[in-house]
Amino acid sequence: MTKFHSPDPRLLQQLDLEEEEEQDYFDYFYDKPGSEPGTLNIEPDAKPSRIVLIDYDETHAIRKVDVTPKALIPYLGSNTISWMDVQGLGSETILKQVGRIFKLHPLLLEDVVNVPQRPKVEDYNEQLMIIAQMVFSQPDEEGFHSEQVGFVLGKSYLLTFQEEQIEDCFDIVRNRIHANQGKVRQTGPDYLTYLLLDSIIDGYFPVLEKYGDRIETLEDQLVLRPQSSYLEEIYTVRRELLALRRAIWPLRNVTDLLVRGESSLIHPEIKIYFRDCYDHVIQLLDIVETYRELASSLMDVYLSSMSNKMNEVMQVLTVISTIFIPLTFIAGVYGMNFEDMPELSWPWGYEACLGLMFIIASSLVFFFWRRGWFNSFYSFKKD
Amino acid sequence: MTKFHSPDPRLLQQLDLEEEEEQDYFDYFYDKPGSEPGTLNIEPDAKPSRIVLIDYDETHAIRKVDVTPKALIPYLGSNTISWMDVQGLGSETILKQVGRIFKLHPLLLEDVVNVPQRPKVEDYNEQLMIIAQMVFSQPDEEGFHSEQVGFVLGKSYLLTFQEEQIEDCFDIVRNRIHANQGKVRQTGPDYLTYLLLDSIIDGYFPVLEKYGDRIETLEDQLVLRPQSSYLEEIYTVRRELLALRRAIWPLRNVTDLLVRGESSLIHPEIKIYFRDCYDHVIQLLDIVETYRELASSLMDVYLSSMSNKMNEVMQVLTVISTIFIPLTFIAGVYGMNFEDMPELSWPWGYEACLGLMFIIASSLVFFFWRRGWFNSFYSFKKD
Amino acid sequence: MTKFHSPDPRLLQQLDLEEEEEQDYFDYFYDKPGSEPGTLNIEPDAKPSRIVLIDYDETHAIRKVDVTPKALIPYLGSNTISWMDVQGLGSETILKQVGRIFKLHPLLLEDVVNVPQRPKVEDYNEQLMIIAQMVFSQPDEEGFHSEQVGFVLGKSYLLTFQEEQIEDCFDIVRNRIHANQGKVRQTGPDYLTYLLLDSIIDGYFPVLEKYGDRIETLEDQLVLRPQSSYLEEIYTVRRELLALRRAIWPLRNVTDLLVRGESSLIHPEIKIYFRDCYDHVIQLLDIVETYRELASSLMDVYLSSMSNKMNEVMQVLTVISTIFIPLTFIAGVYGMNFEDMPELSWPWGYEACLGLMFIIASSLVFFFWRRGWFNSFYSFKKD
Amino acid sequence: MTKFHSPDPRLLQQLDLEEEEEQDYFDYFYDKPGSEPGTLNIEPDAKPSRIVLIDYDETHAIRKVDVTPKALIPYLGSNTISWMDVQGLGSETILKQVGRIFKLHPLLLEDVVNVPQRPKVEDYNEQLMIIAQMVFSQPDEEGFHSEQVGFVLGKSYLLTFQEEQIEDCFDIVRNRIHANQGKVRQTGPDYLTYLLLDSIIDGYFPVLEKYGDRIETLEDQLVLRPQSSYLEEIYTVRRELLALRRAIWPLRNVTDLLVRGESSLIHPEIKIYFRDCYDHVIQLLDIVETYRELASSLMDVYLSSMSNKMNEVMQVLTVISTIFIPLTFIAGVYGMNFEDMPELSWPWGYEACLGLMFIIASSLVFFFWRRGWFNSFYSFKKD
Amino acid sequence: MTKFHSPDPRLLQQLDLEEEEEQDYFDYFYDKPGSEPGTLNIEPDAKPSRIVLIDYDETHAIRKVDVTPKALIPYLGSNTISWMDVQGLGSETILKQVGRIFKLHPLLLEDVVNVPQRPKVEDYNEQLMIIAQMVFSQPDEEGFHSEQVGFVLGKSYLLTFQEEQIEDCFDIVRNRIHANQGKVRQTGPDYLTYLLLDSIIDGYFPVLEKYGDRIETLEDQLVLRPQSSYLEEIYTVRRELLALRRAIWPLRNVTDLLVRGESSLIHPEIKIYFRDCYDHVIQLLDIVETYRELASSLMDVYLSSMSNKMNEVMQVLTVISTIFIPLTFIAGVYGMNFEDMPELSWPWGYEACLGLMFIIASSLVFFFWRRGWFNSFYSFKKD
Repeated sequence: MTKFHSPDPRLLQQLDLEEEEEQDYFDYFYDKPGSEPGTLNIEPDAKPSRIVLIDYDETHAIRKVDVTPKALIPYLGSNTISWMDVQGLGSETILKQVGRIFKLHPLLLEDVVNVPQRPKVEDYNEQLMIIAQMVFSQPDEEGFHSEQVGFVLGKSYLLTFQEEQIEDCFDIVRNRIHANQGKVRQTGPDYLTYLLLDSIIDGYFPVLEKYGDRIETLEDQLVLRPQSSYLEEIYTVRRELLALRRAIWPLRNVTDLLVRGESSLIHPEIKIYFRDCYDHVIQLLDIVETYRELASSLMDVYLSSMSNKMNEVMQVLTVISTIFIPLTFIAGVYGMNFEDMPELSWPWGYEACLGLMFIIASSLVFFFWRRGWFNSFYSFKKD
Repeated sequence: MTKFHSPDPRLLQQLDLEEEEEQDYFDYFYDKPGSEPGTLNIEPDAKPSRIVLIDYDETHAIRKVDVTPKALIPYLGSNTISWMDVQGLGSETILKQVGRIFKLHPLLLEDVVNVPQRPKVEDYNEQLMIIAQMVFSQPDEEGFHSEQVGFVLGKSYLLTFQEEQIEDCFDIVRNRIHANQGKVRQTGPDYLTYLLLDSIIDGYFPVLEKYGDRIETLEDQLVLRPQSSYLEEIYTVRRELLALRRAIWPLRNVTDLLVRGESSLIHPEIKIYFRDCYDHVIQLLDIVETYRELASSLMDVYLSSMSNKMNEVMQVLTVISTIFIPLTFIAGVYGMNFEDMPELSWPWGYEACLGLMFIIASSLVFFFWRRGWFNSFYSFKKD
Repeated sequence: MTKFHSPDPRLLQQLDLEEEEEQDYFDYFYDKPGSEPGTLNIEPDAKPSRIVLIDYDETHAIRKVDVTPKALIPYLGSNTISWMDVQGLGSETILKQVGRIFKLHPLLLEDVVNVPQRPKVEDYNEQLMIIAQMVFSQPDEEGFHSEQVGFVLGKSYLLTFQEEQIEDCFDIVRNRIHANQGKVRQTGPDYLTYLLLDSIIDGYFPVLEKYGDRIETLEDQLVLRPQSSYLEEIYTVRRELLALRRAIWPLRNVTDLLVRGESSLIHPEIKIYFRDCYDHVIQLLDIVETYRELASSLMDVYLSSMSNKMNEVMQVLTVISTIFIPLTFIAGVYGMNFEDMPELSWPWGYEACLGLMFIIASSLVFFFWRRGWFNSFYSFKKD
Repeated sequence: MTKFHSPDPRLLQQLDLEEEEEQDYFDYFYDKPGSEPGTLNIEPDAKPSRIVLIDYDETHAIRKVDVTPKALIPYLGSNTISWMDVQGLGSETILKQVGRIFKLHPLLLEDVVNVPQRPKVEDYNEQLMIIAQMVFSQPDEEGFHSEQVGFVLGKSYLLTFQEEQIEDCFDIVRNRIHANQGKVRQTGPDYLTYLLLDSIIDGYFPVLEKYGDRIETLEDQLVLRPQSSYLEEIYTVRRELLALRRAIWPLRNVTDLLVRGESSLIHPEIKIYFRDCYDHVIQLLDIVETYRELASSLMDVYLSSMSNKMNEVMQVLTVISTIFIPLTFIAGVYGMNFEDMPELSWPWGYEACLGLMFIIASSLVFFFWRRGWFNSFYSFKKD
Repeated sequence: MTKFHSPDPRLLQQLDLEEEEEQDYFDYFYDKPGSEPGTLNIEPDAKPSRIVLIDYDETHAIRKVDVTPKALIPYLGSNTISWMDVQGLGSETILKQVGRIFKLHPLLLEDVVNVPQRPKVEDYNEQLMIIAQMVFSQPDEEGFHSEQVGFVLGKSYLLTFQEEQIEDCFDIVRNRIHANQGKVRQTGPDYLTYLLLDSIIDGYFPVLEKYGDRIETLEDQLVLRPQSSYLEEIYTVRRELLALRRAIWPLRNVTDLLVRGESSLIHPEIKIYFRDCYDHVIQLLDIVETYRELASSLMDVYLSSMSNKMNEVMQVLTVISTIFIPLTFIAGVYGMNFEDMPELSWPWGYEACLGLMFIIASSLVFFFWRRGWFNSFYSFKKD
């Protein structure tokens, strides 16, 4: 019998899977208390690291895949602009070599490698580190995935760290460099940083749009037919919007600091572009807060709908009970077996009794109809 | 039978239409992630662009309709003040020509063309860009429409971008220029900007007033007769007030920056007028926040009314049940067929039994009357 | 029959009246979109304007009623201090003449004439404009009235604009000038401004005190006997406190700016007095926020009381039903007409049956009594 | 009969008393609108004023009770430090004399005499005024009392104004001066101000601790046995915590201004001590906000408990009704008097009928037991 | 019988124990009002103090246990870096001796000894005091413990005060000094402070993670099977997260002041490390606020689930009652004993009556099935 009380193990297993996924939304990486600052934490299931180099100036653009860290050294001091893209955070030796070659501060390396971190920008004088969370979601799935992208902006290079190789939006930028579209080849690594950061930020819009659609759908369904399964859906939407807000909110600070910051690594002319990023982040925050407020009003609507439904159920019960209980009582009276009940032998006694019942029932029906309680019966028709 | 469970397709279709309209309230335009900054997005259903030129100084005022972008060049360097009004954002070539002639920054052109954007003001040194949302609503419809207006203020010209030609309030300003009313002909394009921005801001008041009326009506109706259909109306009002607040809130920043900003394009004497705009925006925010708070208390009132109604329903059920259930039991006892039931053959047995029932019923009626439960019966009379 | 469903027209009419009054609490004046800045809006039912002049210095004080605007000119440049009080905003010519004589900025004149405006202070270099809302309420009425007072402080004069003649608290100041009480005759128009503004601010305290009393009364009544009529009262109190907060909140800014402002029209020594005004406004805000929080907790108490009441109703129903339903079933069993029911012919069958019923009823009574459900019956006694 | 509907007059009287006490928590003193600034308001029931003088330096310390204001004059210009403690605010002449002798600004005198005022600090150049609210509560009573203490700190003296003579914590400071404990005799009146203000602030902790205990008790009781009487208790706790927050919140500003203020009357070395006061006020705020949040969650717990209880009541009713109603129907069918009912004459008809009833009852019991509804019956056992 | 009404004494005792533990979460230490500033408060059950000295520079590192305060004097002026760790706050003489030797300000000594204090940082010119709360929890227990750690950072030494000897994370740092791992031996006492503070901050993450898990579990359980026992669990989680937030929130200020502070005791190069601490605190705050919001939505989910459950209970009752009450009435009618009831003697009267009942029952079943009320019966299957 206990199987009725304990939840189905398969259901729980499924929940466990979901749980792990949900975990992703809200955890940050943290060091073991007391551990050495700058310790790199290589996850067992992290992808092995590989480096993709793109070196360009106004006249040329080359691309090299699977470059060793040492092979990057010549590009460090050159006049051309180099974008070194470290894909996968699973090879400690490669990451440490990169750290040594680029003279990365141990805390900087820790932040780009030990994912996820809170988005932030930090100025290490010779280098500017930017941490951002990229989000994306498959068209056919609910929820979203997020992945950390770390930027290290130097005088003539940009170093990026990704958890795994993201083809989609970064590829568009890569192609633009090769095709010499736009002004990317005429400008420095700061403009390249802007292009990549902007494509990360623009990636939030389609994800948020899906939540807008889910809220619309929920809203329509709640008004048409409130059901308890919507409760869980509302909760999930609120939870995931909370997770999105957590990712977007610190981006506001990041882009604000890039616009107002004093770093010499960002050319004043490029700051206008980061101001554009900042505007987009403000728009995102505006949307996410609006959706959160809508989702929260949906909960109110749900609760009120449930309360309405209960009211209607109660009215049906009350109308039926109140009409029949007095009638049943009268029937009971004349079902008594007293020897001397004069009404029983009256000539039209039975008909008079039925008539009395009819009058009582009619009065009650009229009473309830006047008060509009029969609407509870009609209102179900709309379902 | 499934047609009872699945919602009516016509109803859904109607909801779809509504959905699209609702979509308008909350979405912002966003670039495809990775796209080139400054890409213009021409909606297929956008109106073709046409340019209306008004050129004036203290002594003359001319108006030209359907001017080509090239024809604007002579007016750029002249001493007179020119208002170039681009109506419709559907012609990419015209928009790009305008961008080249006025040397608009690609990001500026993107912001005025790719609608809707969040209201903002941005200083491009030689030009000041202002984005605002104009709202209006027909007297006989619920909800409201919004449309973006982009301003580019130069030294001797004002360039405006509208989604479509808005006759109403801009025409009043146009007529005032021709009739040489007020001080518009004696002042520069900054005063003209003020006149147009002020008429946009003043346009929010009648829209908000309609929501004030809807809240009043809801409030009166809720107190008179709570019904479940009001729930949806409250939700809609809250949702649309949220949308209005989203449009007004950034206007606060816009007008504040115009008052405090360092831009040389706005004459200090004209800043007093923008301070007036700022005051109006603060008044709007004050009203919208007040209405939002009232709408939110309405939800409380609605929930409490429903809870009251349920209480009354329950009291009716309880009073009727509690009175008749014991009586029915007594009738049941004397309806039993035991052979030896002495009461049945008592001479006044039946009358004694009826008397007992009467005493019990009276006691219960008295009990409930003393506790005021019969008010539930009376209170329905008010409906 | 429809008269039961549609609300009583007299009730609606009464609501309409109330509605208009409520309207007053939340609307601001706004220009017709596109109208000329500085347009005066004369309400048809506005009182005709009349000017009361009080001119004084340390040695003399004169008072002139119904002065024409032109007659004010000599007092403008004199060394004495002049208080020109414009009562009633219904005469456009008089108001425009005053505007010309005092060289009022069109926007300033608009703000003091087109009522109501949000309280504010604005510095026009030669003049300081202050807008405030005065509130008052008759001892025997609920709610409150509010009226705008506009101050224009010049070097040697104070110009005030009132919607109608307010005798009460301004008269006390007038009398003090004539009686040469306090230091008003030894100081400039800034001290006079302080006196009038302080009397406006102090006027909020008795109005707020009435709401404190209403909340106390509601609180006592809710605990003694929750009734659905209190719901509307709580809503009204919340609504009116919201209106009061809207009037007081901007006064905080006004008084703060008067204390910290750079205007040369306020003598540093007098700023100590405005600091006192500021303290009073902070106290008002503190009270109004406290009352709002109390009113909001009252709603919680009301909802909980209703929920308690429903619980008690349900317990009464459940106790009565649960006791009698099984008994009625037993009576029903022995009322069946089967030919062969051995119990019916048992010698003590009837008595045994009654005994069984008694045992069942006693067990259930004991069960419910142990659980304290009979408290629901007793608890009504307290009502 | 009306005595059931109108509340017991003794109860109301008791409520009136309570009301007055509650009034104390939330009102501020306010001037009659239009009254002269600096008017002293002597309450009829105020204690007569008496002055206690303590004069000390490193080498001596004297104490004089019931000193006349004039007798204070010699101590004003002396090199010793004088603490003049005005106890009781009922004697207008004494208070005015003190005002003249110490050259107190009329607004300053008004603030220390017209109680209660909002805590604040104000710098009158030669004097620093501090207003604070002291709270205390008897061990055996609920709620707390509050009393205003006004400090006027001069170059060589400290003037304090109390509503009545408070022996407890000020006496400890007095004794410390006489016993020359600590560094009080080696420092100026600023350190004395610190000692007194710190003892006022420390006095809030035991009062708050009582509320912590009340919340703990409520929490335990709510979980064990939810009762409607706790609702009032929760409301009272929330109300009184709101009152405490109102007293503590402005103290934050007061102590912050004392630490950061530019006044020359506070020696920089003593500011470290006021920083300690500031820390204590922050701790108080932290505690009071935490308690407020706990009290507010308690309301949620209470509402949920009530909802649980109702659920259980409904389940009992539903289980009993659903089991017996079909059985009673069957009994009713075989109680019908049709002439030709074949089952009635079946040999085992009665036994078959009882068997059918048993099967139906068992199925329903099994159905409900499987769904765990009998827990509602068991769960009452915990009460 | 009273034992049913009064809670079980053993249960109360258990609650008392819990209460004391809960007390820990929310109280601060406070002085007896009026007491001497700088008074040390030695708890009777405090551990006796012992001092552990670690002295090191780049070339050596020694460790001495149970050092007397006097033995610390030679290390004060030396060039080596000394970490004096005072474990246990129970020996007043040792603590006072340490105060004298290190010339600690009385308020500083009070803050590190009288635990718990609110986390803070205070600059005493020659010394920098930091107060922090360390939290930890055993793997198998719910809740957490917290303990104060006080730091006094001097030019060449670090003095720490702990309530009791904490081995875990401080030992890792001790071992790193001895093993000369990392850069701790090459840097000053400011870096040591960073290492210890960072390990305290990192200690919050695993504690918070446990709450994340508890929320996940609650969430899954609530959706599967809402039960009243979860209410208490939600309340406990909210309460403990509130306590954690109270400990973390002031750490934000502490780390921010260490990064931005002007103190010469922290080398600018080390500030980058404290910036890392600050980032971790922001992450903690972010997590704790997210969890608090999730816990608060859980309450909504719980309330909605309860309301759903009630709806289902009511539907079961209404369906059963509404079907059988009319049938029972019909049976009652034909159980009446009127002499002349024609239907009773109809040939197929009984069968017609049963047929009528069947038709009525079928219609009602169809009516309820169409409205989906039988889902309430099915939905229980999921439990």
